[in-house]
Amino acid sequence: MTQIKNNLFIKACKKEPVERTPIWVMRQAGRYLPEYRAIRDKYDFITMCKTPELAAEVTIQPVDLIGVDAAIIFSDILVIPEAMGMKLEMIESKGPKLYNPIRSVDHVNELKTIDPYKELKYVLDAVSLTKRQLNGRVPLIGFAGSPWTLMTYMVEGGGSKNFSEIKKFIYNQPDAAHKLLDLLADIVASYLSAKIESGANAVQIFDTWGGILSPDDFAQFSLQYITKVISKIKRSGEPVIIFAKGVHYKLDQLASCGADVIGLDWTMNLNSVRNMIGNKVALQGNLDPTILYSPKEKILKEAMNVLESFGKGSGHIFNLGHGILPDVNPENLKYLVDVVKKESVRFH
Amino acid sequence: MTQIKNNLFIKACKKEPVERTPIWVMRQAGRYLPEYRAIRDKYDFITMCKTPELAAEVTIQPVDLIGVDAAIIFSDILVIPEAMGMKLEMIESKGPKLYNPIRSVDHVNELKTIDPYKELKYVLDAVSLTKRQLNGRVPLIGFAGSPWTLMTYMVEGGGSKNFSEIKKFIYNQPDAAHKLLDLLADIVASYLSAKIESGANAVQIFDTWGGILSPDDFAQFSLQYITKVISKIKRSGEPVIIFAKGVHYKLDQLASCGADVIGLDWTMNLNSVRNMIGNKVALQGNLDPTILYSPKEKILKEAMNVLESFGKGSGHIFNLGHGILPDVNPENLKYLVDVVKKESVRFH
Repeated sequence: MTQIKNNLFIKACKKEPVERTPIWVMRQAGRYLPEYRAIRDKYDFITMCKTPELAAEVTIQPVDLIGVDAAIIFSDILVIPEAMGMKLEMIESKGPKLYNPIRSVDHVNELKTIDPYKELKYVLDAVSLTKRQLNGRVPLIGFAGSPWTLMTYMVEGGGSKNFSEIKKFIYNQPDAAHKLLDLLADIVASYLSAKIESGANAVQIFDTWGGILSPDDFAQFSLQYITKVISKIKRSGEPVIIFAKGVHYKLDQLASCGADVIGLDWTMNLNSVRNMIGNKVALQGNLDPTILYSPKEKILKEAMNVLESFGKGSGHIFNLGHGILPDVNPENLKYLVDVVKKESVRFH
Repeated sequence: MTQIKNNLFIKACKKEPVERTPIWVMRQAGRYLPEYRAIRDKYDFITMCKTPELAAEVTIQPVDLIGVDAAIIFSDILVIPEAMGMKLEMIESKGPKLYNPIRSVDHVNELKTIDPYKELKYVLDAVSLTKRQLNGRVPLIGFAGSPWTLMTYMVEGGGSKNFSEIKKFIYNQPDAAHKLLDLLADIVASYLSAKIESGANAVQIFDTWGGILSPDDFAQFSLQYITKVISKIKRSGEPVIIFAKGVHYKLDQLASCGADVIGLDWTMNLNSVRNMIGNKVALQGNLDPTILYSPKEKILKEAMNVLESFGKGSGHIFNLGHGILPDVNPENLKYLVDVVKKESVRFH
């Protein structure tokens, strides 16, 4: 195993002492970078996901160009439904579309269960290749959608405004829903285990749509399957991060799901959350991504607010509260990263 | 003044004793009702808003057909930007569009200030007419968008996914933003005062987009203007309700903005919120609107959960946690209303 030179991110995930706060940002391998767009102009999104050389190249871009403290493998959470047999298309400026969405237990039964080393080998190849090319500079993060978030896309057939179909599905066909969630939990666990086996130093689970559920439904349809996934991941010390957007009402329960780190969106207050659950887990976040539209003085002020809100000590990974937006000036992200690297020293 | 026969809603807003919990639902005058669609098939949405006879008719439909305990005047929050000079269009299944969105202080200066008795007389006429036709059966609610929510639409030019434009506006042109918010606060206050003068028994302020702001920005850009609006509304005992979707992190501050009632979305827990702020204000909400897609047993169970979560005593107005969805079966809403009327007796 290559020794990782800058291991601040992993140390902070484990709440070990660090000399400064590490930073990476969600969607850092993405459209805001001209160097990414130059590749994206030549290949469609899914081809990029499926070509390890391209995935590795864009994964490493923000490490080289922005100086982030971790790389996150370029991929998409919907590679799992696609591997299970659903036709996936990324529609420009509209988002993902999954054809023939799941609406019944028969649909669920038609889905293939998968072996990540076969159907998703291209992701694992991208992980190993990126790992070799990173050559120990920074840790590499793997990721997957939570069972609930994957099921939401599979039932809605894409993004949604009102989430009518997924809600009809769970309220009218709860057995089919639980069957699918259970299947997805097994697949997500084996997929994340395979990513770790292939070289990922940490994994993040995205529960993007947990926040559309009431507290009781969240516990039943999302949290229990996240807990199952985490309990089944084969790992030797690699941290697990759970990012559950908008789940302010269940943070205490989330802190007991087995994750080492909880990712927070920008509507939370790091200080309050640290007081509530910060002795159990590390916290990741949570600058409002739109702050990167601001002048530098505002970026500095708001970055300081985030650092001060967490306060002194380890257990904080700086990040945005959601993915970086595509029309952000990369100079502003570079400035944020520099500010965090410099100003966070005094908090350690 | 006509005496109101069923005054449970107003009493609950004031935390006075009631024999059962009152119920109404957001967007109750809407597309889920075939009787509404029959009218909407003949007239476009804006014409319906601007024709007092049509607005009154659809406002009263859910009182007759569903048996709700309050009527809310059929209108739209965007009548204010339109009256200020912006061109408004409602695009079928896409939502509202405001042309030439506000992007600079010059744009702000070009906006007209308005006298609700002139530019929005059609709304006030609809209120008086509805009031006469209701003939004291149930109270009538008037409403407006919060200054922040109106400004969000005016700057984005409609709905939004990432809210990039409004965030750029407040971070890069904060003086222009505060100027517009201040102007909107004056207009909203005079508009709601005029609605009360015309016969509204209560008013609700919708801060639909407060939840996209970080806690600090919410205080600065939304809450202070809501507080200003409420302090300026001319009223003699008519309750003010504030519905601020997704503002879980500022409920304690919201409880001090001068509103009598706080409306909660379905991700909050009534019991926790009542323990935190329920001695200051009444609470309205908060059944997940998608529960109305469920079988009756589930609707019953979830309605009981909401009633039990609030617990015994006055100060609860039953509502959905967001507007009723257009493809809900009206029978399911009728069933919910019946359940709440019958089952809530034991909580009083």
